[in-house]
Amino acid sequence: MKKLGVAILGLGVVGGGTYKILTDNKEYFKKTQKLDITVESVLERNKQRALDLGIEEDKIASSIEEVISNPSVDVVVEVIGGVEPARTFVLKALMSGKTVVTSNKELVCKHWYELEAEAKKMNAGLLFEASCVGGVPIIRTLTEGTQANRILSLVGIINGTTNYILTKMEKEGTDYQTALKEAQHLGYAEFNPTADVEGFDAAYKLSILSSLAFSKRIPLENVYREGITKITGEDIAYGKKLGYKIKLLAIGKNTDAGIEVRVHPAFVPVDSMIASVNDSFNAVKITGDSVGEVMLYGRGAGALPTGSAIVSDIIFAGKHPEISYATFENTKEADKSTKFVSDFTTKYFIRLTVEDKSGVLSKIAGVFAKYGVSLKEVKQDVYKENGVPLVIITHETQEFSVRKTLEKLEAMEEVFSVDSLIRVEE
Amino acid sequence: MKKLGVAILGLGVVGGGTYKILTDNKEYFKKTQKLDITVESVLERNKQRALDLGIEEDKIASSIEEVISNPSVDVVVEVIGGVEPARTFVLKALMSGKTVVTSNKELVCKHWYELEAEAKKMNAGLLFEASCVGGVPIIRTLTEGTQANRILSLVGIINGTTNYILTKMEKEGTDYQTALKEAQHLGYAEFNPTADVEGFDAAYKLSILSSLAFSKRIPLENVYREGITKITGEDIAYGKKLGYKIKLLAIGKNTDAGIEVRVHPAFVPVDSMIASVNDSFNAVKITGDSVGEVMLYGRGAGALPTGSAIVSDIIFAGKHPEISYATFENTKEADKSTKFVSDFTTKYFIRLTVEDKSGVLSKIAGVFAKYGVSLKEVKQDVYKENGVPLVIITHETQEFSVRKTLEKLEAMEEVFSVDSLIRVEE
Repeated sequence: MKKLGVAILGLGVVGGGTYKILTDNKEYFKKTQKLDITVESVLERNKQRALDLGIEEDKIASSIEEVISNPSVDVVVEVIGGVEPARTFVLKALMSGKTVVTSNKELVCKHWYELEAEAKKMNAGLLFEASCVGGVPIIRTLTEGTQANRILSLVGIINGTTNYILTKMEKEGTDYQTALKEAQHLGYAEFNPTADVEGFDAAYKLSILSSLAFSKRIPLENVYREGITKITGEDIAYGKKLGYKIKLLAIGKNTDAGIEVRVHPAFVPVDSMIASVNDSFNAVKITGDSVGEVMLYGRGAGALPTGSAIVSDIIFAGKHPEISYATFENTKEADKSTKFVSDFTTKYFIRLTVEDKSGVLSKIAGVFAKYGVSLKEVKQDVYKENGVPLVIITHETQEFSVRKTLEKLEAMEEVFSVDSLIRVEE
Repeated sequence: MKKLGVAILGLGVVGGGTYKILTDNKEYFKKTQKLDITVESVLERNKQRALDLGIEEDKIASSIEEVISNPSVDVVVEVIGGVEPARTFVLKALMSGKTVVTSNKELVCKHWYELEAEAKKMNAGLLFEASCVGGVPIIRTLTEGTQANRILSLVGIINGTTNYILTKMEKEGTDYQTALKEAQHLGYAEFNPTADVEGFDAAYKLSILSSLAFSKRIPLENVYREGITKITGEDIAYGKKLGYKIKLLAIGKNTDAGIEVRVHPAFVPVDSMIASVNDSFNAVKITGDSVGEVMLYGRGAGALPTGSAIVSDIIFAGKHPEISYATFENTKEADKSTKFVSDFTTKYFIRLTVEDKSGVLSKIAGVFAKYGVSLKEVKQDVYKENGVPLVIITHETQEFSVRKTLEKLEAMEEVFSVDSLIRVEE
């Protein structure tokens, strides 16, 4: 039976989950996968944590050099997170010819080209299923399941923290701050929630997933990003009346016009599949030229779901010695021939507070018309203490035209405030 | 660049779709997969069909022997369907050492052990992603994506024809016969619809999928099967009032008590993900011990979706020369140690027509109590011309107890008819 030695760098939540799956299922993997997988080495500053997991003292390495010089280690699992020291450790492991399995989306997003170049030199594997959408095998699906397709688009809820917060706001009518605190309390959000709530985490993942989907390098710099911190209970309530739910979407499109990649909150129809993805669950819908729509749904984070993806990569590496790299030239920047579309086309929900005076609506509609933005629906609410709330839904239009319209509106005396701009994806 | 020669047996809908994907994307696969895939041979009785697809005359073989003796053919795609002659052709291809890719669920379900034995002898690949749920990469997910898990359960809508019919009945209030005719008219149902509407097609797929999921051979004989032909508009209407939608479910469970595999119509909560799977779409939800719930959704049939799965297998075989077979001993019968549960536990919706007389309800409730079936909800409708409709929802209970209860009820003078028995899966 083929033996496979594993080292785990970092014994946090995911590292611990990975260790548990590998040890609990050792006999099961021997039987079903014909692989005898053993954790041969761990690198963890907190030695007690390793001992508590039941790891023998002589397997606790004190440096990355000790890990990579261990000849019984075939696969190095990196679950430290962040760029450094993870990057240096992974590079050293690859340089020593070991296959690397990582859950580190920031590292893969920012340094993939560099890691892959090193891996290729040494014919080492580089796998990162766990970096995107936790236990949901979206990367394997793109590389081994729908690879017969040209992927036309990818739409996902790929950050569990923000989906938990938005679901909470929607179901319980709580405001953003309250929902965030609850998410922090339950461990769904970090003490410093920026990476999640400002959309960085989703943008890392979208950069990786859209690169794989479209077989082109899509750097982070090209991903438009907007977080959920400005979403209010009022937006959610108005959306509900209009038949929408709000989600933080990651959208990638590959059209004749070019590549469009964006992360932002969006209204989606309440009866769509993507709208039923609640709490900390994730989902990704891909559309291929042959297969049509395929959607994957599941847990995007957590010790065992993410551990499941890591162990899946370990087994994959063990069973398929022929190594695959990216299906495109993996460079730091995008290929010069790749066109990116930043002036994208969608529908918009716009909420204003305006003066209670006749003729205002007509004046506002005039500004939209001037920039070629056609309106689908206008709802003027009753007067509140600060003015009249006005909700506008546009037809499909260009992003830049809407932004110019809003600039103009903001400068109008009759417009007290531009309260919200939320894209509508149907 | 690695060259891969393909032969296609059968140029029907799926064969044609496969040919189209392979030829349209030849350059794309060279670039992204580093594989130069060429259709080298086709076997099709209707020669004109091959010529119409643009296939050169000298590539149209006149016998299976001609196909397998062609040294430029590496992979044989079988898309004839049914057991014979598909079985003989596939066995011959495997005996000659060629990798076989098939979409034939009946063949794989009934003869997998035999095909695999032959494949192993010759170290030939045997891939059948397209046999289950069309373009949705559920088999690759089970074998290469969630393989780190012990799968605890699998619940799916894995037949598009019946889902189309049930969606139509539900949305338009049409009866079964009308919806079936519409499905036949649109090409979603065959002229002889038995395989679909009686649940055979779903049972073939469930046998394959649950074998893969539970790493145990689950023969067709062990799958409980019930079709949709007895479902009425009344059942659907009552279900709607109770917050349910009706779906033909394929359910596999792997518990300490044993393996439970069943295909039958079931009510599911209207707000569940599985309830949003409409028309001819399919979905499979698996629950793993580490990953938790993962659901895949997409098109379960059609020329291009199924072709997408076939081409995915061809590419997989080309990229990963290390061949994998079933993760269990692949025999004709189930392993003697495998326990099957036929007296399964679920909730039930029961519809009766009873006499309009005081004391009837109490008598009926007494029969349920006698067999230990606890009732959750009883709705007695107003008198109709043939008696009083009575709708009962039970708590979780045993299948055999419910069947015994119904036998007893049927024999009661006050029970005019037992109209429906539909399981409720929450």
